[in-house]
Amino acid sequence: ETVEATVDATMDATVDATDRPAADYINGVLAGDRRVIAKTLTLIESRKPAHRDVARQVLDALYPKAGGAARVGITGVPGAGKSTLIESFGMRLLEKGHRVAVFAIDPSSAISGGSLLGDKTRMPRLSFDPRAFVRPTPSSGMLGGVAGRTREAMMVCEAAGFDVILVETVGVGQSEIAVAGMVDFFLLLLVAGAGDQFQGIKKGIIEMADAIAITKADGDNVENARAARDDYAAALHLLRPERTYWSPPVVTTSVYDMESLDAIWEIIQSCVGLLKEHNELDRKRGGQAIDWMLTMVEQRMLERFRDDPAVKGLLDGLRREVADGRVSPELAARRLLSAHWSEMAP
Amino acid sequence: ETVEATVDATMDATVDATDRPAADYINGVLAGDRRVIAKTLTLIESRKPAHRDVARQVLDALYPKAGGAARVGITGVPGAGKSTLIESFGMRLLEKGHRVAVFAIDPSSAISGGSLLGDKTRMPRLSFDPRAFVRPTPSSGMLGGVAGRTREAMMVCEAAGFDVILVETVGVGQSEIAVAGMVDFFLLLLVAGAGDQFQGIKKGIIEMADAIAITKADGDNVENARAARDDYAAALHLLRPERTYWSPPVVTTSVYDMESLDAIWEIIQSCVGLLKEHNELDRKRGGQAIDWMLTMVEQRMLERFRDDPAVKGLLDGLRREVADGRVSPELAARRLLSAHWSEMAP
Repeated sequence: ETVEATVDATMDATVDATDRPAADYINGVLAGDRRVIAKTLTLIESRKPAHRDVARQVLDALYPKAGGAARVGITGVPGAGKSTLIESFGMRLLEKGHRVAVFAIDPSSAISGGSLLGDKTRMPRLSFDPRAFVRPTPSSGMLGGVAGRTREAMMVCEAAGFDVILVETVGVGQSEIAVAGMVDFFLLLLVAGAGDQFQGIKKGIIEMADAIAITKADGDNVENARAARDDYAAALHLLRPERTYWSPPVVTTSVYDMESLDAIWEIIQSCVGLLKEHNELDRKRGGQAIDWMLTMVEQRMLERFRDDPAVKGLLDGLRREVADGRVSPELAARRLLSAHWSEMAP
Repeated sequence: ETVEATVDATMDATVDATDRPAADYINGVLAGDRRVIAKTLTLIESRKPAHRDVARQVLDALYPKAGGAARVGITGVPGAGKSTLIESFGMRLLEKGHRVAVFAIDPSSAISGGSLLGDKTRMPRLSFDPRAFVRPTPSSGMLGGVAGRTREAMMVCEAAGFDVILVETVGVGQSEIAVAGMVDFFLLLLVAGAGDQFQGIKKGIIEMADAIAITKADGDNVENARAARDDYAAALHLLRPERTYWSPPVVTTSVYDMESLDAIWEIIQSCVGLLKEHNELDRKRGGQAIDWMLTMVEQRMLERFRDDPAVKGLLDGLRREVADGRVSPELAARRLLSAHWSEMAP
């Protein structure tokens, strides 16, 4: 608490107060100070080279302290009630004595600059509870960059002692794959509806789920939700489960029914427990970390390629010529690489 | 035919006769000479730098002549009767006056050196029919490399006048995605079975299909096949189709029932016809070509990275340290790239 007080006093409240030494961030995070945690995440999201340097020192120091949380990915189509469920589920976990951090990966924000998610007003109780930490989506960057910063943010919160991490994403594409690659457990939220609404489910998402929860199973909607549960259970039955010891369950849930929220937590715990029992949790996380290392290598090579003026001068023209069939993809790739590599080693 | 005769006379029958000038290959392929086509594909698969040079000249010259075939990907779980169906379907197309080329992408051959597919004895009639061309799987290389050579082989056969290309793959992972990225139409073969056998379907494959055919719908198996068709049709109904104007049909098929084979060809033609009508076919192929250009850029950058002695010296150790949590993925990526880039521009 002495550390907290000191750091609080010396760090001012503006976003730009990122010129503190790395030790201030590290100590504040390890002391669990929410203001310092917030500042550290801002530091991580900064693109200024000086900030990147300090961020690297902070992350390198915190990394050995991370890993202690249950990492849960939550996805669902728009309208499935993700925010409402996460708010209620998160509050329920706080009541049970957990410390909960919530992140969101929203690829739409990378494109539009706006955000479907990430607004603190979506989760008012959780956002202002001192036992929780809700972070809006980083507002810019490629999905790879956003996903990378979310991984780093998870690490910071784990080092700060949060023991449940919820990573939310919209069910619109590559972001689920990114989230599935950074969590222990992946929950899919679906909402019951008329026959036509089943069509709204994105390809491949059902198959990544460790469990499916049909939301809004309350009031007049209970029967619909149960029917949807049975339909999805039948559809899941047609797919081979990834692990012999875990068949993804399909349940109905309501934010007005605490038992249904507790059931989700029990499902998560029993799946993670089985992963541990089969020595799969460390292997899963180790594999995710190696994949992430290689993904970063790839991304940075591609970034350097894309930023290369020699490549920029050629790419648009070649894309057109390749799409029209005037230049073969092979020849175009050769031209691009030869321009890039001669630029790198002049 | 003069060209054919000349080329035939000057090219000997051995695989190593790859020191011919590019013009011999080009003229032979354009004349539709099957021996020269076979030699050209061997040239393309060669890893010798001198052969690669000639192969590039040949491919660059043939590229503008390619694009005239219906490109069909066919996948299915082992036991679904892929070879038998492709043989019968291919023969049926020959009877209708088409010229059919068959390729296979088999990632298992890249790993084991052996091949599940690619044996000419699997398709005896088609292999020895002068109107068809059956090419065994390239026997080595990463999936990316095999897929690349298959794209090039398709191009050679299109330039030679084949108007239907069938690309076969086993339903075991990434290879379907590679195949889906090089064809106009993707057909999934499934076999009826007991409830448990439904579990054998690989995740995500169903979702890529433009049509599903339940094979072996003959004799005692007709009822099972029809029941399976209805089950899969119901499962497909839960997924959103990729295009509003095409809902993937599910049909039963038997190699003893010519009408069921004709029905598959009609489905392919009507899907490809709709793609053309909606101006989607050129867009799909153009997009595939651009993706392929970028994939090759990426692959070659990664190859150069992996082959770099500086990277090799670090990678195994870093993989272990990252999996164990001793080094962060971010720090490991930085170390690898800094070693690689200082090697490239000393």
